[in-house]
Amino acid sequence: MSIVVVGTVAFDSIETPQGSAERVLGGSASYFAVAASFFSPVRIVGVIGQDFPQEYLELFARHGVDLEGLKRESGETFRWRGRYHEDLNIRDTLELHLNVLSGFVPSLPESYTDASYVFLGNIDPRMQMEVLNRLTRVRLVACDTMDHWIQGSRDELQRVLRRIEMLVINDSEARLLSGDHNIVRAARSILKMGPKVVLIKRGEYGVLQFSDASIFATPAYPLEEVFDPTGAGDSFAGGFLGYLARTGDHSQRGLRRAIVYGSVVASFTVEDFGLRRLTTLSLAEIEERYRRFIELTDFHT
Amino acid sequence: MSIVVVGTVAFDSIETPQGSAERVLGGSASYFAVAASFFSPVRIVGVIGQDFPQEYLELFARHGVDLEGLKRESGETFRWRGRYHEDLNIRDTLELHLNVLSGFVPSLPESYTDASYVFLGNIDPRMQMEVLNRLTRVRLVACDTMDHWIQGSRDELQRVLRRIEMLVINDSEARLLSGDHNIVRAARSILKMGPKVVLIKRGEYGVLQFSDASIFATPAYPLEEVFDPTGAGDSFAGGFLGYLARTGDHSQRGLRRAIVYGSVVASFTVEDFGLRRLTTLSLAEIEERYRRFIELTDFHT
Repeated sequence: MSIVVVGTVAFDSIETPQGSAERVLGGSASYFAVAASFFSPVRIVGVIGQDFPQEYLELFARHGVDLEGLKRESGETFRWRGRYHEDLNIRDTLELHLNVLSGFVPSLPESYTDASYVFLGNIDPRMQMEVLNRLTRVRLVACDTMDHWIQGSRDELQRVLRRIEMLVINDSEARLLSGDHNIVRAARSILKMGPKVVLIKRGEYGVLQFSDASIFATPAYPLEEVFDPTGAGDSFAGGFLGYLARTGDHSQRGLRRAIVYGSVVASFTVEDFGLRRLTTLSLAEIEERYRRFIELTDFHT
Repeated sequence: MSIVVVGTVAFDSIETPQGSAERVLGGSASYFAVAASFFSPVRIVGVIGQDFPQEYLELFARHGVDLEGLKRESGETFRWRGRYHEDLNIRDTLELHLNVLSGFVPSLPESYTDASYVFLGNIDPRMQMEVLNRLTRVRLVACDTMDHWIQGSRDELQRVLRRIEMLVINDSEARLLSGDHNIVRAARSILKMGPKVVLIKRGEYGVLQFSDASIFATPAYPLEEVFDPTGAGDSFAGGFLGYLARTGDHSQRGLRRAIVYGSVVASFTVEDFGLRRLTTLSLAEIEERYRRFIELTDFHT
């Protein structure tokens, strides 16, 4: 089953204690699309500027990503510059230039409207709603957001939440959205806002999944070298939804396996700067690390 | 198999966002002993003052804890006062009175010297070494420590590390001891200092176990109400070593199950102030939550 993702396509400039990278391909839609492409075909809705290089379009093409919904506008591509601390959970945004993203209204190509799986990446909830309204045969919508929208566009976000199946956010965002510091109570509050499933990303500490019937907790895959945490959350979402779309198994067991596949893909992403590691990754490597993940966590079989 | 624990026995005064408790029984040896008592008999080495009430001695007695090694000295019992933030991972020490603990030299009763399992709680490494030197038939020694000893008594601590099988510390202590921020590399460095197994406690995020051959990662049991995190780490160590001493199974599988039992006991500890929850806990409740822990984490069976 193919997946439509709406989100940002960006130039990222990144500094971490391990090194730096200038103007590499980034953005939520980019990470999501390449991560999901290991399991399912992906179609991007987004916007780029005149300065977006052919090289990056070819990168998407090599991963079979459909770019009909990626509009090129006059102006420059969205840019972000950030610096990570020694504690990689903390980062400072040094520059943010919306450029072509400001005023962007996503328009879904006719060929995308029958999509079954949709990921609403972290963008203005108004844009997320635009995309939702165009879809005619959706089976599953997952959504991300961030503190900026939770604080500044809460009503619009709440309208989106009432129409989605899954929310994928990090723990501080879950606390902010619910107003509750305890993460279990926070997730229960968010379930009442609409989503059937809430996935809480905890970075190097793993993922929690909440539904009315069940809680699933998994650690992250421990790594000796983390070069660049950028895009880990979107890679997780991509691996998760990509696997789910491939299997079509929405049972609790299916969801849990998809979460571990998402965690595995994200663990590769952070091994190098930007999308570099994902572009050399093979499905065999993913399967091998999935098996190691079982060895890592099993205590009862 | 019975366990000897050396550590502190204290009066704790605790403030958390959920409430407060004055002068309740605390200290590393107290939490460890009661937690371990669900699985194995425990013998305490420690010191109390003239003000230590009969009520608390009876609490230990009800859990079958042998108190022959708990010396009563003239003076007051060790006291600690702390306050937790909204983020329960952060706490401030408001008062600390060593009292009878200053100058304490642990002396092992003759009847303890044949102990097979030993836990060196978080005290001066010189005291830990005193206990180690008296033991004649030890099968397994586990040890805890803290930033104070890592920074102030590193040589003495290193001597202890060369003689133990397992180190149980939290993540910030592991970083401090190794000088490495990455937790996987930090654990590998510590393995080179002596211990065969390093257990990294990550509070609400769970536990990592490292040995030369294997890594095990497990989340913590998610709770809707955490009243008081005090003693969670020592309860974990108690449940872990208690279960290990009961089964005698030191295989990787045995260690992993012991880690989950330790996590389960710790999850009960934090549900109420001080030792209150552990004193009403039953083995049946522990077994029930262990089964829930399997449901919480399983994705592949």
